[in-house]
Amino acid sequence: MTPRALLFDVFGTCVDWRTSVAREATALGLPGEAVADAWRARYQPQLETVRSGGREWVVLDVLHREALDDVLDDLGLALGEGERDELAFAWHRLDPWPDTVAGLTRLKERHIIAPCSNGHIAQSVNLAKHAGLPWDAILGAEIARAYKPDPRVYRASVAALGLEPGEAMMVAAHNGDLRAAAACGLQTAFVARPREHGPGQQTDLRAEEDVDVEAGDFLALADALAV
Amino acid sequence: MTPRALLFDVFGTCVDWRTSVAREATALGLPGEAVADAWRARYQPQLETVRSGGREWVVLDVLHREALDDVLDDLGLALGEGERDELAFAWHRLDPWPDTVAGLTRLKERHIIAPCSNGHIAQSVNLAKHAGLPWDAILGAEIARAYKPDPRVYRASVAALGLEPGEAMMVAAHNGDLRAAAACGLQTAFVARPREHGPGQQTDLRAEEDVDVEAGDFLALADALAV
Repeated sequence: MTPRALLFDVFGTCVDWRTSVAREATALGLPGEAVADAWRARYQPQLETVRSGGREWVVLDVLHREALDDVLDDLGLALGEGERDELAFAWHRLDPWPDTVAGLTRLKERHIIAPCSNGHIAQSVNLAKHAGLPWDAILGAEIARAYKPDPRVYRASVAALGLEPGEAMMVAAHNGDLRAAAACGLQTAFVARPREHGPGQQTDLRAEEDVDVEAGDFLALADALAV
Repeated sequence: MTPRALLFDVFGTCVDWRTSVAREATALGLPGEAVADAWRARYQPQLETVRSGGREWVVLDVLHREALDDVLDDLGLALGEGERDELAFAWHRLDPWPDTVAGLTRLKERHIIAPCSNGHIAQSVNLAKHAGLPWDAILGAEIARAYKPDPRVYRASVAALGLEPGEAMMVAAHNGDLRAAAACGLQTAFVARPREHGPGQQTDLRAEEDVDVEAGDFLALADALAV
């Protein structure tokens, strides 16, 4: 069945967070890629504090700002408070992959397209304005007040569109995300982003689950869904 | 101060609900304008049952479907259940005013644009797809689980964008909506829609409050904000 809505993971799937964050860190005199990698390494453990119930849901800006202090401490790097505050918002200014905007624009013609990201609404809107992502709505973590792969995020996003889970397809470059979406009854599409983590990436190079579609990029996804 | 975000009332301000609903009712053999007017007349009293705390917040589809039964009863009109269900979704298929899409497209270049409507997310997304409304996000009643002019709707919509109230501007064809938004600290713009209620409209023909901008349509609003 052709999905009515396509829900997208954003960090890594739609945008190249590593290159973008590294560029902003480098501009502040920091070792950009080392900062980006160390920052992202803190991401899942931080989300787990919320998913486990150990901490109330807070927007990602708060987690990014806290993690930045830890990263700079660990790497022995100095940076003023104002510059830290500004750098934390680098996650609102990430560049898309080369196929992202053209692919989303094609997919939007026949489907509702929305992020189902762990980013909150403000971050998702600012990112969309920066990167030109033509979303129909902003769904994801904030409307569920939970973090993926918590099933509430997928369920709340589908329900907000008035759809059944099987009428929506989750699109992601991450097998874990698709596994969780499939468990909620969503269709799934894997789009590999083999440079998300840089040249040495070893994970998520191909679909490891029984996905409905596997495509090389968003334009190939549009081709696959247009049949 | 130039607003970062423009929040829009939708029914009447962006779309011509009366003509659109009347057309669908007429196609089912009903007296279109009489049905549209009677249906809309039930709207504020229904919302008041939620605003007063007498009823839990429910999506507008539920209220529209309930009111339709009352309207058809009152007007002594027959219609099958399946057709009633389908007609209730006419509120997802409303046509824009002639200036709406061109105006929003211009306004989107310099501002975040989003509905702050009593419509829920699914209705707002379906309407945007039908009418070509190029929203950056869908805000409004559902994220607040309240109905305008309850201040929680304006406050939740602004907060979701990470903004202060004064950084947002409410755009509406209804003085009551702008009065409530201004009380929350938002900037306000009045755009008259003198045919919203048909040729004999007597209300909301001009701004009755001290608004920041009064414009004849969305293109004039874009001109006024571009200074």
